Amino acid sequence: MKESVQTAIIGVTGYAGAELTRLLLHHPRLKGKPPVLAGRVDEKDAARGGIPLAEIHPHLAGSSSASSLRLEPFSWELLAERKVEVLFLATPHEQSREWVPEALARGLRVIDLSGAWRLTESSNRAVYAFKDDGTEQANAIQAQAVYGMPELHRARIAGAHLIANPGCYSTSVILPLRPLVAAGVVDLSRGIVADSKSGVSGAGKAPTPKTHYMYAADNLSAYGIFSHRHTGELLEQIGLNADEIVFTPHLLPIPRGILSTIYVHFREPQTRASVAKIYHVFFAGSPMVRLYDTTLPQIQYSVRTSYSDIGFQLSADGRRAVIVSCLDNLLKGASGQAVQNLNVMFGWGEAEGLE
Amino acid sequence: MKESVQTAIIGVTGYAGAELTRLLLHHPRLKGKPPVLAGRVDEKDAARGGIPLAEIHPHLAGSSSASSLRLEPFSWELLAERKVEVLFLATPHEQSREWVPEALARGLRVIDLSGAWRLTESSNRAVYAFKDDGTEQANAIQAQAVYGMPELHRARIAGAHLIANPGCYSTSVILPLRPLVAAGVVDLSRGIVADSKSGVSGAGKAPTPKTHYMYAADNLSAYGIFSHRHTGELLEQIGLNADEIVFTPHLLPIPRGILSTIYVHFREPQTRASVAKIYHVFFAGSPMVRLYDTTLPQIQYSVRTSYSDIGFQLSADGRRAVIVSCLDNLLKGASGQAVQNLNVMFGWGEAEGLE
Amino acid sequence: MKESVQTAIIGVTGYAGAELTRLLLHHPRLKGKPPVLAGRVDEKDAARGGIPLAEIHPHLAGSSSASSLRLEPFSWELLAERKVEVLFLATPHEQSREWVPEALARGLRVIDLSGAWRLTESSNRAVYAFKDDGTEQANAIQAQAVYGMPELHRARIAGAHLIANPGCYSTSVILPLRPLVAAGVVDLSRGIVADSKSGVSGAGKAPTPKTHYMYAADNLSAYGIFSHRHTGELLEQIGLNADEIVFTPHLLPIPRGILSTIYVHFREPQTRASVAKIYHVFFAGSPMVRLYDTTLPQIQYSVRTSYSDIGFQLSADGRRAVIVSCLDNLLKGASGQAVQNLNVMFGWGEAEGLE
Amino acid sequence: MKESVQTAIIGVTGYAGAELTRLLLHHPRLKGKPPVLAGRVDEKDAARGGIPLAEIHPHLAGSSSASSLRLEPFSWELLAERKVEVLFLATPHEQSREWVPEALARGLRVIDLSGAWRLTESSNRAVYAFKDDGTEQANAIQAQAVYGMPELHRARIAGAHLIANPGCYSTSVILPLRPLVAAGVVDLSRGIVADSKSGVSGAGKAPTPKTHYMYAADNLSAYGIFSHRHTGELLEQIGLNADEIVFTPHLLPIPRGILSTIYVHFREPQTRASVAKIYHVFFAGSPMVRLYDTTLPQIQYSVRTSYSDIGFQLSADGRRAVIVSCLDNLLKGASGQAVQNLNVMFGWGEAEGLE
Repeated sequence: MKESVQTAIIGVTGYAGAELTRLLLHHPRLKGKPPVLAGRVDEKDAARGGIPLAEIHPHLAGSSSASSLRLEPFSWELLAERKVEVLFLATPHEQSREWVPEALARGLRVIDLSGAWRLTESSNRAVYAFKDDGTEQANAIQAQAVYGMPELHRARIAGAHLIANPGCYSTSVILPLRPLVAAGVVDLSRGIVADSKSGVSGAGKAPTPKTHYMYAADNLSAYGIFSHRHTGELLEQIGLNADEIVFTPHLLPIPRGILSTIYVHFREPQTRASVAKIYHVFFAGSPMVRLYDTTLPQIQYSVRTSYSDIGFQLSADGRRAVIVSCLDNLLKGASGQAVQNLNVMFGWGEAEGLE
Repeated sequence: MKESVQTAIIGVTGYAGAELTRLLLHHPRLKGKPPVLAGRVDEKDAARGGIPLAEIHPHLAGSSSASSLRLEPFSWELLAERKVEVLFLATPHEQSREWVPEALARGLRVIDLSGAWRLTESSNRAVYAFKDDGTEQANAIQAQAVYGMPELHRARIAGAHLIANPGCYSTSVILPLRPLVAAGVVDLSRGIVADSKSGVSGAGKAPTPKTHYMYAADNLSAYGIFSHRHTGELLEQIGLNADEIVFTPHLLPIPRGILSTIYVHFREPQTRASVAKIYHVFFAGSPMVRLYDTTLPQIQYSVRTSYSDIGFQLSADGRRAVIVSCLDNLLKGASGQAVQNLNVMFGWGEAEGLE
Repeated sequence: MKESVQTAIIGVTGYAGAELTRLLLHHPRLKGKPPVLAGRVDEKDAARGGIPLAEIHPHLAGSSSASSLRLEPFSWELLAERKVEVLFLATPHEQSREWVPEALARGLRVIDLSGAWRLTESSNRAVYAFKDDGTEQANAIQAQAVYGMPELHRARIAGAHLIANPGCYSTSVILPLRPLVAAGVVDLSRGIVADSKSGVSGAGKAPTPKTHYMYAADNLSAYGIFSHRHTGELLEQIGLNADEIVFTPHLLPIPRGILSTIYVHFREPQTRASVAKIYHVFFAGSPMVRLYDTTLPQIQYSVRTSYSDIGFQLSADGRRAVIVSCLDNLLKGASGQAVQNLNVMFGWGEAEGLE
Repeated sequence: MKESVQTAIIGVTGYAGAELTRLLLHHPRLKGKPPVLAGRVDEKDAARGGIPLAEIHPHLAGSSSASSLRLEPFSWELLAERKVEVLFLATPHEQSREWVPEALARGLRVIDLSGAWRLTESSNRAVYAFKDDGTEQANAIQAQAVYGMPELHRARIAGAHLIANPGCYSTSVILPLRPLVAAGVVDLSRGIVADSKSGVSGAGKAPTPKTHYMYAADNLSAYGIFSHRHTGELLEQIGLNADEIVFTPHLLPIPRGILSTIYVHFREPQTRASVAKIYHVFFAGSPMVRLYDTTLPQIQYSVRTSYSDIGFQLSADGRRAVIVSCLDNLLKGASGQAVQNLNVMFGWGEAEGLE
C-alpha cells in the first residue's frame, strides 16, 4: 500500500473543483503533497507564476494551507515534472473525452468527474453526442473505465486506471434503488418513480438566466422530464429498462443538496425489517452510506458531508415504499465520491479525509 | 342575482385569513361592505372597540381601506346586527365543527376553510378524530356540505349553504388528475404518484420547531408519507382507492406556493393533443385554471395569483405522463378558492375580485 | 383635466418595465388604453406582429388583460400612429440620452426611469460619462427636466415635459432626510450616514457573477462605497455637500425591497413629537408616504406596494436619531413612482392605480 | 504546557453548543478526550444513560466520533468523576450567574459564552438586571473575569480562571474599531456608526414569532436601536462614551453570519497605507483575524470559519472610512472564540482546531 500519492486537478474554477481542492488539502494521506492545480492561464498570469487560488475562490483566502496554492498553466510536462500520479478532471465532458486518452497513455490514473466515460451503452451516450464516439480508441478506453461508485464496484475501482465518477442525481437514485432491485423484491412492471430536487450549485457556476437569483429564489421548477442526461446512468447501474423508471429533476431554491423521493411497488409484501435488512446487508462495509432506521433524512443533515443518507417508509400493506435519499451534490455527488474512489484505489480507509 | 352581500370572517390572524380579508376588501361586488372581522378579543381590546387589523398584520397598515378595519369580539348577535349573510371560517377544524351547526341554524351561508366538513367517508374522516362524528346532527350537516371546488361541483356550490373549501395540497392534485381519471385513460392498476412540495406558510403561523427559519431554510424534507390528512380528499374527489395513489408532501424553503409533480400510466398510448383535449374540454368555462401548452408551470408563475396552473410532458411512447401543477397555497389553495366559491354562490363572474 | 391618456413603454423586458406594464394595465384611468410596448424586435418576430408579452414574462401569461399585449418593433411612426402622448423609458441611461431629444421634439411627454436626466450638476453627472454632456442641446433638455419625486417637486411635475424618475436607493434616502434637513434641525457638520440594503432585482436582469444565486444567497456584501452613482441625487435633492453624507449600498439575499438605516445628529435636542411633526407637516398631502409612529418599517411591509415607509428612533438625550426607511425598489423605487408622476402630470389622484 | 485537558459543556442543545461540541471533538489536543456533555435530563432518559447527541442534533448522527456522545444528567459529582478541568457554559446568562461561583470554588476553569460576566461597569450591566448584582461574591467574581478576546487580552486570558466569551455583534464591532481608537486617529467627537446585520441563528433556537420562517425570509428589519445589550461591551472594550457610537442590529434572512458596516471620521487625513499599518501592527500574531487589503470581506467568505474578516475603504480626502467586518456568529462570534480562548489558556497554538 502506498503511503501517499501526488495528485493534480484540472478544473478548479467550478464548485466541484473548489470542494475537491479543499478535500485534498486536508486529506491525512496527502499531507505535504498539495494537489497541483493546472488549467488555462493567460500569459500575464503565467508570468507571475499562475493565479493565486484565493483570487479564484476568495473564501479559501484565509486557510493557511490553501493560501499558497496557485493555478498553474497546464502542460503534460508540468504534471511529469511534479511527479503527478493521479489526475482529477473537473472539466466539461468534451474536454475529458479529449484529455483522458493522453493522460492514460502517459501512465496517469484518472478520476474524471464529468459524464464523459460513465456510460457503457452507446444509446445512453447519445445524449452527449461525443465527437469520437465509436472510434476504436474511444471504445477501448470506455471498456476499461469503471463507474466510480465504491458501494457497487469496490473491487474493480481498486485496480482501475480510469474512474468515471458518477453524476450527482444518479448517485442519489442508484444507491437507494440498486439494493432493492438486486434483491429482486421490486415489481418493475409497475414502474419506479424518482422525483429529485437539487440545489442551484448543481447548475454550475456560469451565470445564466436559470442560475439568476431572481429565477431560482422563491421558486421550484421541474425540467428535463423524460430527457435528463443522468437517466442512462440510472438504467445501467440499477439494471433497468427505460420504461421501468421515470426520473424528474427539479431546481430547488437552496445553494446545495439533493433530495430524491423514490416510489416502488414490491412483488410481495415487505416489512420494515425485511427492507432494512436488504439495505444493511448491501451497505455493510460502506462507511459513506448512512441508513436511517427511525427517522427520514433531510437535506440539512447531508449538506457539507460526503455521506449518502437513505431512509424509507412502507405502506400499511407492505406493498409500496417511499424512499428518501439525500446527499450533498458537490460532495457525495461529486468531489467527496472522487476522494472516496481515490481511497479505494490506494487501499486506504474508504472514509479517510471525508469526515 | 344579488348585487352585493355582507360577509364576515372568523379567523383573520392566520395567513389565509389575512389574504381573505385583503381579497374581500378589494372585491368589486363588496365595495362599501368590508367584511366584519370577528374573533377572540380580550376585555381591554374590546373596550377600545376591538383590535385594529393593522396591529395584527402590519403589512396591511397603509392600505386606506384596511386601516379602519378592526377585529371585534365575536358574538352571534354581532353578526345579526351587521346583517351578515355569508360567514367565512378560517378557523381550526375543531372550531368549525362546533360553530357550523349554529351558523346554519341562524340562516347564515358558510364557507369553511378548514378540513371539518370536506370528507364524505367516515373512514377518511378518522384522521381528524372529530368528537361529534357519527351523531345525527353531524351526519345531517355533512350530507349538505358541498366540496368547494367549482371546477368539479359548480352547480351544487351555487345552491349550497355549507361549502367545505378544499385543502391546498388537495387542490394541486385533484385538479390535474380528475379530468384524466374521469376520462378513463389512466391505468389505475399501476398506481399514481403525487409528489408535492409546499412553502412554509402552509405549516401555519404558530412558531414551532418546524417553522423556525433555521429548520426550513436551505432545507427540504418529506413528511406525512402514507398518512397526510389531505389524502382522503384526493381519494373521494378523484375517485380512487387508497392503493391507487401515493401522496408525499415536502416542506420547501419558500414562503408560499405548491408544486405537485404527478406521475401516471395510460391504458392506451396518448398524444400531446389527446391529453390536451381532455384538459381543455374539462376546464372549458373554468377561468381559474390555466393550461400550459408549450412550457411547464413554475411556482413563481402561480404565486400571488388565484390560478391553478397545469402542464404536462408525455414519454416518447405516449404511455406515461408527468404532470406539473402549481398554485398559491394561500389563494387557489385557500382564500382565493373561497372567494371563487362566493362568486359561484351568488351567480357573479367566477373570477371577480381574483385577477 | 384629461380623462385618460395613451401611453407607451420602451424597455419592458427588465423587471421595472414588467412592473410598469402591470401597473398601467390596471390603472383605472387607462382602461381600454393598454400601453403600447415598443422595442427591439427581430424580423421573424416582427412578422408575427411582435413578441407576445407572456413569452417575455411568463408570470403575466394568465392575466386576461396582459395576455393580448405584444412587444412591437419600435418606430416613431408607431407611436404617432397609436396617438401616444406619454412615453415611459425603462431603458439604459445611454439610450435615454439618445432618445429623449427626439421624443420631446415630437411633442411627447417623457417619464424616463434611467439616470440620464436626473442630475443638475455636471460634476455629479461625471459618473455616467454621457457622450453629449455639455452640448447646447443636452444642456437645454437638462434644464427642463424635473426630478420626479412628487413629495418634493409636485408643482413642477404637473407641468413638466420630461420627468427624470428617481433612483431606487436615492428615493429611500432622500424622502426621510429632506424634511429634516430642510427644517434646519440636522447638524450637518457631524455627517450623515445612509446605510442601504437592496434586494437582487436592483442589480438587473442580466445574468452576471453577482446576480448568480450562489453569490447572492446566504450572503451580504457592501459595494460602491464612496462611489455609487446615486450619490449625486442625494446631494442635489437633499441639499448637501459631498462630505456631509456617506452612502453605502449592500446586496441583500432577497428578491426585492430596500431598507435604508440613516443616522443623524441634531443641532438641538429633539423629542419624538418634534421630529414627528416635521415629517407629518412635510408629507401632508403625500399619499404614497406612510409614517410609522409606534413601530419601525420592515422590508416585508413595503414590498409589493408603492409606498415609502418611514420610521425613526431617538437617543435618550434627543441629540441623535436612527431613521429606518423602506420601499420596494421596483415600485416606489421605479415603476410605482413613475405612475405617481403620471398621475400628478394629469391632475389625477396621486395614488390612483397604486393601491 | 499541558498536553491535553478534559472539558465539559453545559448547554449543548442550542446552536452555539452544537458547534462547540463539534469543534472540541475534532480538536487535535483533545483526541480521546471528548467533552462531557451535561445538562437537564429527565429520569427516563437518565435511565438509558442520557440522551444520544444524535437525537438532539440529527445532523451530527453520522460522524463516528459524535455518534457515541450522550447528554448526561448534570451534577458536580459527574464533573469531578470525569476529572473535568475546563467547563464551557453555553447557557442563558441567569444560569451562568448562578453556576460560575460554584464551578470556580470547585477549582474548574470556566469559559462562559453568555453575557453574565462580560461587563465591568454596573451601569452597563443594568440591561441584564442580574439578581445578585452588587453582592460581595458577585463583585469578587466579576473582578477576576477576563473578557475573552485574545486579540485584546491575550496575556490575561492565559492565566484566567473565568473567561467571559464576547458577544457575536460585539466581536464584529470591537475588533475593527479598537486598533483605530487605540491609535488615536478617530475623531470621536463626530461619532461612530456601527450598522450590523446578523443571520437568524443569532436569535436562538426557540421558536418565536421573530424566528418564524415567514417573518425572517425575504425581509430585513432593524431592532434594539439605542438599546441592544451588546452596547456595553462595545463601550468598555473599545473605550468609548455612550454618545460616541450608535450601534444598530438588523435581522438578515440567512442562517448565519454577521456583517458590520462601520463609519468613522479621522482627526487627520489618513492614507490606505497608514490605516492598513495600524491594523497590521495591532493584529500581528493574531491568527484568527484576516485583513483584506485589496477587496472587502463578505459574509460568505467568513461563514463556517472562526476568522474575523476586516477590510475598509477611505474617502478621497482621507478624512472618513467605511470599515466592513464579517464573522460567523456561531464561531468567531461564540464557539470558535471559546476554543481560541482555550488554546490561549493552555499555551497551545491559538488557531489549533479552528482551521
